[in-house]
Amino acid sequence: MTVTANGKTDLEIAQQTKLKRIEDIAGDLGLLEEEWEPYGHYKAKLSLNIMKRLATKPDGKVILVTSINPTPAGEGKSTVTVGLGQALHRLGKKAIVAMREPSLGPTMGVKGGATGGGYSQVLPMDEINLHFTGDLHAITAANNALAAFIDNHIHHGNELRIDPRRIVWKRVVDLNDRALRHVVVGLGGPAQGVPREDGFDITVASEIMAVFCLASDLQDLKQRLARIVVAYNVDKQPVTVRDLGVEGALTLLLKDAFKPNLVQTVEHTPALVHGGPFANIAHGCNSVIATKMAQKLGDYVVTEAGFGADLGAEKFLHIKTRFSQIKPEVVVIVATIRALKMHGGVEKEHLHIENAEALRAGLANLQKHIETIQAFGLPFVVAINRFITDTEQEIKTLTNFCEKHGYPVALAEVWEKGGEGGLDLAKKVLDAMESGNSKFTPLYDVNEPIPDKIRKIAQIVYGAKDVEFSPKAKKQMTQLEMLGWGHLPICMAKTQYSLSDDPTKLGRPTDFTITVRELKPSIGAGFLVALTGDVMTMPGLPKRPAALRMDVDENGNAIGLF
Amino acid sequence: MTVTANGKTDLEIAQQTKLKRIEDIAGDLGLLEEEWEPYGHYKAKLSLNIMKRLATKPDGKVILVTSINPTPAGEGKSTVTVGLGQALHRLGKKAIVAMREPSLGPTMGVKGGATGGGYSQVLPMDEINLHFTGDLHAITAANNALAAFIDNHIHHGNELRIDPRRIVWKRVVDLNDRALRHVVVGLGGPAQGVPREDGFDITVASEIMAVFCLASDLQDLKQRLARIVVAYNVDKQPVTVRDLGVEGALTLLLKDAFKPNLVQTVEHTPALVHGGPFANIAHGCNSVIATKMAQKLGDYVVTEAGFGADLGAEKFLHIKTRFSQIKPEVVVIVATIRALKMHGGVEKEHLHIENAEALRAGLANLQKHIETIQAFGLPFVVAINRFITDTEQEIKTLTNFCEKHGYPVALAEVWEKGGEGGLDLAKKVLDAMESGNSKFTPLYDVNEPIPDKIRKIAQIVYGAKDVEFSPKAKKQMTQLEMLGWGHLPICMAKTQYSLSDDPTKLGRPTDFTITVRELKPSIGAGFLVALTGDVMTMPGLPKRPAALRMDVDENGNAIGLF
Repeated sequence: MTVTANGKTDLEIAQQTKLKRIEDIAGDLGLLEEEWEPYGHYKAKLSLNIMKRLATKPDGKVILVTSINPTPAGEGKSTVTVGLGQALHRLGKKAIVAMREPSLGPTMGVKGGATGGGYSQVLPMDEINLHFTGDLHAITAANNALAAFIDNHIHHGNELRIDPRRIVWKRVVDLNDRALRHVVVGLGGPAQGVPREDGFDITVASEIMAVFCLASDLQDLKQRLARIVVAYNVDKQPVTVRDLGVEGALTLLLKDAFKPNLVQTVEHTPALVHGGPFANIAHGCNSVIATKMAQKLGDYVVTEAGFGADLGAEKFLHIKTRFSQIKPEVVVIVATIRALKMHGGVEKEHLHIENAEALRAGLANLQKHIETIQAFGLPFVVAINRFITDTEQEIKTLTNFCEKHGYPVALAEVWEKGGEGGLDLAKKVLDAMESGNSKFTPLYDVNEPIPDKIRKIAQIVYGAKDVEFSPKAKKQMTQLEMLGWGHLPICMAKTQYSLSDDPTKLGRPTDFTITVRELKPSIGAGFLVALTGDVMTMPGLPKRPAALRMDVDENGNAIGLF
Repeated sequence: MTVTANGKTDLEIAQQTKLKRIEDIAGDLGLLEEEWEPYGHYKAKLSLNIMKRLATKPDGKVILVTSINPTPAGEGKSTVTVGLGQALHRLGKKAIVAMREPSLGPTMGVKGGATGGGYSQVLPMDEINLHFTGDLHAITAANNALAAFIDNHIHHGNELRIDPRRIVWKRVVDLNDRALRHVVVGLGGPAQGVPREDGFDITVASEIMAVFCLASDLQDLKQRLARIVVAYNVDKQPVTVRDLGVEGALTLLLKDAFKPNLVQTVEHTPALVHGGPFANIAHGCNSVIATKMAQKLGDYVVTEAGFGADLGAEKFLHIKTRFSQIKPEVVVIVATIRALKMHGGVEKEHLHIENAEALRAGLANLQKHIETIQAFGLPFVVAINRFITDTEQEIKTLTNFCEKHGYPVALAEVWEKGGEGGLDLAKKVLDAMESGNSKFTPLYDVNEPIPDKIRKIAQIVYGAKDVEFSPKAKKQMTQLEMLGWGHLPICMAKTQYSLSDDPTKLGRPTDFTITVRELKPSIGAGFLVALTGDVMTMPGLPKRPAALRMDVDENGNAIGLF
């Protein structure tokens, strides 16, 4: 059964919304005619020259939306992000939403988009969820062109003496395709390249996606691309994109994609939807250039980071802020009654039954994320994203908990009511910003040794007792230090479902150890990935993929998309 | 050394041309506001509703541009196509150019675009040669989503009893990547799919590209997609997209790409650039929908078909016309002095030396293609695409030859002079159409047996003595007839360099036999591919790919693209 707001599916709400023409949205933002290009009547790409024109304008304030650990019950972080933007807009504030753009893989695979839901969506949702302005395709093309250049270099004599067993650059498709996880390429004889083991990731896991989302301008994009390590040579020394001489070509392939995309919400609030890296092996936030541009074009920027506060927010605060000087003023922590009940031990099929006891048990998860945000020195507001199955009693239990501890809390009914349902949240967010309590401090210094940085994240953010490093990870840390990469920030790859590295440990696990299996340098992006547990960089499709319900009607409109 | 017109490279001419805004081009064509969507300021997608509004308007006349057998010296068919469109425009005719859209593979690999050259280009050339409006990306995504659905179906129990050894659907990338020609997928254990041999083609070789280019509307697109045979089951019966139930999802992925793209030439002549299938394993012409729409929007449509008249024109006349009722009124056969000298035995490095004798010897190739067009009952004009190294003496030799035989001939200086240089050609093309000599007749009937159809193409179009079928091909022909596919037209896959199936036999080979190695049904597209010799469906990169020269300047403009 499809859940509906006022009896309508997300796609129906989207298709029944009368959109403003994109020139009107651009006009509302004060953009000059030469500063934007239309992509259809409801999408636009924005020129990077906007940053120059508005260089001296004070930056808008950044509101970071994060959440408790996600569960299959759903937390609705994107919906709250959009709804909060709409609510601020209703309060007369110049607010802009900044979000990630969706991947085709999940869209074709499982129900659930990345464009919000109900009356808090970015539109046109069907286009944004399908090809949008082609950014993910451009990243796919750049990623795979680089892979072709590597194999071609080896085929034509291998001047750089690349060790074919030590190529770390994988190909990508923007699809869920498990059969491509482990492949052998270059078969068929001497004219068909050099046989070797290889594999494909989903596009959002490409380091080019991470680079794209951290680059401050086109030149920085090119320099970061040049630094990407694609392989090691027979002396085990890194081989980079610069060594291959193709950073210019890759930048050329990305130059249009790199312009932020302007769209609107159901209530015509402007939204920049741009870039979308994984929140496990990458940092899970929309592009730096889009967030910074939103800060120039608006007074308030509502942006989100992937998964829970232990992953997305931690990386936003340690990685994205470090490369961009973007500092959030306030954090919104999204919680749902359903997800908290799951953290309190209820199975998914029993979530519709009122259960204040389980809810109280699950609050420990919320409590931990609140402590994390406090550790960063940031004010916060708890947003209860209301579901139709929530009872008054349950909501009261949650608000009582917050009030007892002095935590600002607001009920967000943005899915059902749009911005109107987020006014209380918006007011509390504005109050929190005006309190002037933002004393943002990172939890580690990049110049600390690698294991110390990882230990601080694990202990302070996850609540772990300690960190264990596999023998392989220990050896790699020594190598990374030797190659001069020891001073980079850490990008933790961990399950999103638990504060620990065991996805079955819900709530607030204690007395656990995080095991770092392996480290992987992302030198172009500028961080070291620490892998704990199995991290999926190429999802698979379910037995009955969402694609089976999709179609096009006789007028060319999408059917069955969510 | 880069060849330049008036001292400028193609990219310089393109970047220095003051383009009209696309709304002005759309306005010139009488399009209603709701009938087009901008993609930037100089590209647009056109609504399929145009076909309904103009259903009763008489169709514009189609001028098909083809050529002698191409050589590494270049024949410039796209340049003449664009130049002729511009010349007709200068003569006050409502002319539209309809062309294929380029693939990224050749763009990144070898110098040479697919957007014409000099002062006869479609613009913006850099965008058209890179991502354009994302059509090839959408086709890539649809192709690879289908591949993922197949492997996923097998992984989750294989209800359709697909034989993993008999999957004929390959994945694609829009790149030259020889290492992907032969691969093994599904490695890594039971959770990672079913191991099997597989391979990647370049996107333009995807059957989805052929389907896309032959479909008359969205419903026809969906029905053709549904008919695609992706595999055979354990009883050796075909498994189709319809069996998998994903034709709706694939249509959804293609619905925006399927709208024709409007751009302009250097002289602001409207151009529809849409679709681009290979001219060997597919039919090598731009989309039916774009050609038909151009016929509704203009009085004259100048369109081209891939490779020489033995491949592209033959397929245009036997395949594209059959599915679309598009009939050309006149054929332009492009020849160059350089290419004719190569057909006459001159090596590429000596082509700048005057050699009327070799030229005379090479004329036999032109003569054969003229006879082919005559066999189809179509009037023609020979276009001499002038190169700066051609001497007056050589041009005179060629014009004398044509005049002696009564062949209409015109010197086309469109590369150097734009439409002005094609006025004589345009006038002769108009004369040929007014002569009323078009008595178009296909050379075979689709209901003839498969070998008879192939023999007629080989004997009448190639001048072959006979056709030999390999034992495998003979067996396949029996199977194809049994499966009820015997009545489909034939798509010959043959080297483009020779009239024979041996690329080294230039000029007009005689007394040769064509060997059909294998047959491959493209049931969605609606033809049977007959493979002669080795046909490359995934090109490789050269030692120093064009990508090494590419870059982006500080203003975000392309550098080193051609």
